[in-house]
Amino acid sequence: MSQVYFSSQDISTLDSRYRTQLINSLTGFKSLALIGTSNEEQLLNLALFSQVIHVGAHPPYIGILSRPNSVVRHTLENIRATGVFTINHVQEKFYEAAHLTSARWASSEFAEVGLTAEFKNSFFAPFVKESEIKIGCELNELIDIQSNGTHLVIGEIKHIFLREATLGSDGYVDIEAAGSLTVSGLDSYHRTEKIARLPYAKAKEKLG
Amino acid sequence: MSQVYFSSQDISTLDSRYRTQLINSLTGFKSLALIGTSNEEQLLNLALFSQVIHVGAHPPYIGILSRPNSVVRHTLENIRATGVFTINHVQEKFYEAAHLTSARWASSEFAEVGLTAEFKNSFFAPFVKESEIKIGCELNELIDIQSNGTHLVIGEIKHIFLREATLGSDGYVDIEAAGSLTVSGLDSYHRTEKIARLPYAKAKEKLG
Repeated sequence: MSQVYFSSQDISTLDSRYRTQLINSLTGFKSLALIGTSNEEQLLNLALFSQVIHVGAHPPYIGILSRPNSVVRHTLENIRATGVFTINHVQEKFYEAAHLTSARWASSEFAEVGLTAEFKNSFFAPFVKESEIKIGCELNELIDIQSNGTHLVIGEIKHIFLREATLGSDGYVDIEAAGSLTVSGLDSYHRTEKIARLPYAKAKEKLG
Repeated sequence: MSQVYFSSQDISTLDSRYRTQLINSLTGFKSLALIGTSNEEQLLNLALFSQVIHVGAHPPYIGILSRPNSVVRHTLENIRATGVFTINHVQEKFYEAAHLTSARWASSEFAEVGLTAEFKNSFFAPFVKESEIKIGCELNELIDIQSNGTHLVIGEIKHIFLREATLGSDGYVDIEAAGSLTVSGLDSYHRTEKIARLPYAKAKEKLG
């Protein structure tokens, strides 16, 4: 089991694409969601994000990390302009279409990749009809990360849609049963297999 | 396939523990890492984080989200004081020990849960010997999220240790082959099963 080591100096001299793959792998498994937005003229946008983070439950805040705004980033522009976005978990039946939203399309990604925009409860941003877990958020805070110009969007959860069969009696949503996928690195898609839910950790009560 | 809907009003009236489970589930699958730190007196701390995020590859930045500082948070205190921390992926062989680091221990979590602190390359923060993927980071930026007092720690990657067998020729690290786990909600642990790596998405080249 031979080991590899990269120092800071090694990393700085790596080929750019190699470095992008390497560093993207190191954060571990990531969430996978399609972010639905609309501009003020109701041109719909759909973009795949692998960085959806839990910020808090009381009030219910969720964050998405957006790359630097040096190229056109319609998702961030639309959120700034309209104040709303949707988060739609990606399942295996449409993950290839979800991946394709990353290409540069001339018109709305919904039509281009073959996913269906769905409007629910008078919410201005489009949901993805095919998704098993859909969340509607209102912009609460927009943070510019000084280190590299990345943006952290904090949204407050306003609407949640999911299947009753995946909702546990304690509030836990069985996202594996819902078929939600996870991603590693830039482009590796994985389904999951549950090992266990563990009880709340207490000192002096070692498990097993 | 009966649907469930929660409005903002519904969410605000949920039982607190139910709401915590529900909202924590909605972000999708999360990374799972033990964060190793030391205070200035070399008392070692080890804490389980499920929010390790990719911030950028050039330069190599990685973020960890820390809960509000209203209770004692040794990880954040130690990072502020010493400027360094380690990120150690969690594998199945020690995930129960990793989970137990969340309890309130009287002394160092390493000794209490039975994991081994390892010092490498003169780095001040401890690595987890048992982990297959170990990363040493220097604090670059500390962001206070106004919405709820959560903190986002941005570290620059200075050291990477992994097994040669898991490193692909393009720089992708096969974290599934390394055995890294993912977590959903507060307490549900999952292994993964790769579906596919997809090629870079281009318009008009729909995947077959």
